[in-house]
Amino acid sequence: MKSDIEIAQETTLKPIHDIVTDLGLSEEDWEPYGRTKAKLSTGLLEKLEEQPDGKVVLVTSINPTPAGEGKSTVTVGLGQALNKLEKKAIIALREPSLGPVMGLKGGAAGGGYAQVLPMEDINLHFTGDLHAITTANNALSALIDNHIHRGNNLQIDPRRVEWNRVLDMNDRALRQVVVGLGGPTKGVPREDAFSITVASEIMAVLCLAKDLQDLKRRLKKIVIGYTYEEKPVTVEDLDAEGALTVLLKDALKPNLVQTTENTPAIIHGGPFANIAHGCNSIIATKTAAKLGDYVVTEAGFGADLGAEKFLNIKSRAGGIQPSAVVIVATIRALKMHGGVGKSELTTENVEAIASGVENLKKHIETIESFGLPYVVAINKFPTDTQKEIDFLKEWCSTNKVEVALTDVWKNGGAGGIDLAEKVIKKAEGPATNLEYTYDLQDPLEEKIRSVAQTIYGADDIVLSTKARSQLVFFEKLGWGKLPVCMAKTQYALSNDPSQVGRPTGFTIDIRELRASVGAEFIVVLTGDVMTMPGLPQHPAALNMDVTEDDKIVGLF
Amino acid sequence: MKSDIEIAQETTLKPIHDIVTDLGLSEEDWEPYGRTKAKLSTGLLEKLEEQPDGKVVLVTSINPTPAGEGKSTVTVGLGQALNKLEKKAIIALREPSLGPVMGLKGGAAGGGYAQVLPMEDINLHFTGDLHAITTANNALSALIDNHIHRGNNLQIDPRRVEWNRVLDMNDRALRQVVVGLGGPTKGVPREDAFSITVASEIMAVLCLAKDLQDLKRRLKKIVIGYTYEEKPVTVEDLDAEGALTVLLKDALKPNLVQTTENTPAIIHGGPFANIAHGCNSIIATKTAAKLGDYVVTEAGFGADLGAEKFLNIKSRAGGIQPSAVVIVATIRALKMHGGVGKSELTTENVEAIASGVENLKKHIETIESFGLPYVVAINKFPTDTQKEIDFLKEWCSTNKVEVALTDVWKNGGAGGIDLAEKVIKKAEGPATNLEYTYDLQDPLEEKIRSVAQTIYGADDIVLSTKARSQLVFFEKLGWGKLPVCMAKTQYALSNDPSQVGRPTGFTIDIRELRASVGAEFIVVLTGDVMTMPGLPQHPAALNMDVTEDDKIVGLF
Repeated sequence: MKSDIEIAQETTLKPIHDIVTDLGLSEEDWEPYGRTKAKLSTGLLEKLEEQPDGKVVLVTSINPTPAGEGKSTVTVGLGQALNKLEKKAIIALREPSLGPVMGLKGGAAGGGYAQVLPMEDINLHFTGDLHAITTANNALSALIDNHIHRGNNLQIDPRRVEWNRVLDMNDRALRQVVVGLGGPTKGVPREDAFSITVASEIMAVLCLAKDLQDLKRRLKKIVIGYTYEEKPVTVEDLDAEGALTVLLKDALKPNLVQTTENTPAIIHGGPFANIAHGCNSIIATKTAAKLGDYVVTEAGFGADLGAEKFLNIKSRAGGIQPSAVVIVATIRALKMHGGVGKSELTTENVEAIASGVENLKKHIETIESFGLPYVVAINKFPTDTQKEIDFLKEWCSTNKVEVALTDVWKNGGAGGIDLAEKVIKKAEGPATNLEYTYDLQDPLEEKIRSVAQTIYGADDIVLSTKARSQLVFFEKLGWGKLPVCMAKTQYALSNDPSQVGRPTGFTIDIRELRASVGAEFIVVLTGDVMTMPGLPQHPAALNMDVTEDDKIVGLF
Repeated sequence: MKSDIEIAQETTLKPIHDIVTDLGLSEEDWEPYGRTKAKLSTGLLEKLEEQPDGKVVLVTSINPTPAGEGKSTVTVGLGQALNKLEKKAIIALREPSLGPVMGLKGGAAGGGYAQVLPMEDINLHFTGDLHAITTANNALSALIDNHIHRGNNLQIDPRRVEWNRVLDMNDRALRQVVVGLGGPTKGVPREDAFSITVASEIMAVLCLAKDLQDLKRRLKKIVIGYTYEEKPVTVEDLDAEGALTVLLKDALKPNLVQTTENTPAIIHGGPFANIAHGCNSIIATKTAAKLGDYVVTEAGFGADLGAEKFLNIKSRAGGIQPSAVVIVATIRALKMHGGVGKSELTTENVEAIASGVENLKKHIETIESFGLPYVVAINKFPTDTQKEIDFLKEWCSTNKVEVALTDVWKNGGAGGIDLAEKVIKKAEGPATNLEYTYDLQDPLEEKIRSVAQTIYGADDIVLSTKARSQLVFFEKLGWGKLPVCMAKTQYALSNDPSQVGRPTGFTIDIRELRASVGAEFIVVLTGDVMTMPGLPQHPAALNMDVTEDDKIVGLF
């Protein structure tokens, strides 16, 4: 079996100029970055305003397991399959973060014959968007510490600076640091932390901005900490929104590449799926909708996190209504949700599937709660037995759930034809209306409870003392009408990652809130959330090399 | 008078495709980055091996003063002037660092009608080279701390880690930090420091590498610190050179842009001019020499630092021999070297020039010591009086020094014709042989003394106890045959920045050494050297903005 990078390196890519021309764009609408990448212009979306919108297909999944579900691969394969069916489809994905690429083997650009390319570039520096976000984030940090050092007119309390520095790196040693040591010429000492770049509020802001002016408006509102009197201090107070917007001007432009079958793909933005909303940018999704009949896009983690936030946060902010949802599952992952360990996945086990399928059932109910049509996609693995597949098909039929087998890793678009046909039928069926889980006018506590009960199936929420006082404080500061962005383990519906399948009779502990006022949501932490990953015993970086004939090896 | 950015925005740039085609390059030799920037391919230099070399003209200056000398502007203007004289000239410059752009107003891309463009891009993210260096540097840091955290097989002494993290930012609060706080899940606590990216040894390595394999060879040798038994630990010991080379693969490709008069300019690499050698990359300079009749390139700071290191380090490593040197001076700066304060520069003062010209004289002697032909360029300012100019011309004539007035800020290439003609005469005169200041076989102490005496005019050097023991240690480790890279104040010939003009009867204090084994030089610190700048009271960042019609303003 060929590796992803071998398949990638054997693929003949079209010059990006051809991809762009096929989309009907002219010279002023784009800029090349190398021969196979492009950035679309800032004004393109506005220029396309009068064009009709293509249909948005949202790809989500059951709760992820160590078995792997292949959500990105299905997303890419579905786009390719739609093209085979003469629908002009465009894929819209998130940009991978470089940090994890150095840590654990495995990129984030699909796989097999359903990849976005050039995968080496996409997984490394790409067009520099994440580097621009790192720079903007850390420019703000430098301006904050410089302000404190030079008289602190705003009376920022160094103990209440909430703005972390960031690096696009897995770097455990930066999780908790002290900066400003060394005496009067080296600033004011204070505790600080580095997060990974995708956890920066600037990433969320960039992904939710409608245009450059909206980006600036949101940057302005970011709260970087509090004064000694506990008043919020904003980017506007520091007069820094202009510089940050200048630094992000190019990063706001969506990136265009292609798949292994030359289907256009817009890859842009990649916020964390726990402390942020986990979807690619509004500009990318909307531009793709203007340029194609279909946009296939994905949200992070399972439907309880990614899809919930896509629909309650991104759809609301961007006026994006999916015409159909695909829920990805695998036989292997359903077995794990039925309690089987990773080492036993190759043994046939229909009983485990019968139990694990309850996880899928909850996510189906979740999508139904939003009033959206959906198809379940079973992403085939070579180890799946006929009996297991038959059981799952039977279960879907009994429960009146539309299901399609896909085999896009091995067969590209051809492996997703059945799924594509079913998605088209749903998307072109009677129009539906997206029903949000909560109303923005509800109090924050009510919004959190609605998500916990409707989406997770919890009995109730349990607020910590800290969270309770923050709720009062945030409502008082006028942030009560913002949507909530839940940070919960992705591995289970409850906040205990070991509760696979469909737990019942549980409550959700609400530990702490964080205000992402620029992103326009309140982050709700339901447990310890690590915003800076570490490297494993043997980092993937150590496998990478450049051979004597200057070829990259060991990258996936 | 128009500002640099106004002139830049009014200039009509040629498509980079045309610039590249005029240089005789084909599709496989380059990649576009937007419409006006390109990266030249890694293999181009090798492909051009059989081509004859164009002549290299090195632009240097007197010791810099707050009055400004305009060395980059003269470099760009001279290139433009050579083109007007039907010589195919290419300019080779360093890449500006983004950090200072956020701090003090003023870019590093020439000025007026002698700029490299697009100046906004060049001064901000450009093609991402500095971001790639930041990432590679910090990936190494993460691998070091991860190694220590996970058992520390190599027995790295956390107190002796010499590898700093970096950011391309002016950020005082990161000059001295403690990392790894927070208990067993957050690494091993140790003191650390962040430098600005251009101070990373990786920047020096990239600029001195001949090709990708030489880059990898040098990265391997970098010493990141010492074991508990004081044995050096290298990148090779950590097995990290492959990953670092992968991260730097694109950054090693030289960037091609153009000037205000569409003269091609290669802008690539920008190491600090004190703790590193302060010149653009060997690959850039050599590629420019293969593609043009003339390369005009500059070295950092004055001839005592930049030119000395260009000639003793870069020329030696790359086999680059300048055919002529230009020494830039201004009437204003010579007055400051004659003891005049910045506020009195507009008053005519021939006496001050008569005294300050001694600084120029020393740098002339320095270039003579290398056996190279030279021309002095007087970069005109509107406040210069005829009497002052006449005096300086007379002084040059008496001392048999070739001199030319230039006016390239205001008139572009047309303002540098006289200089260009004189440079051509020198460069096309009898061939000369570059004489190095010291032999690589000399002991380190002897090399340091040679530079101090020959280049600075010092009586001798005075070694600190630490430096003395390091000399013994480094010679024992086999590093004694490396050239020395002097870190001295740029403002004076001695290591007292207030000693303008030409001080005599002084010694040079040698405080400490640092081994840049990958860059293949020993850094010699003659005083406190700050490798992380800070932001001023009113950072330039606060002037930057994006207007309502999406235009960048306030950037210079």
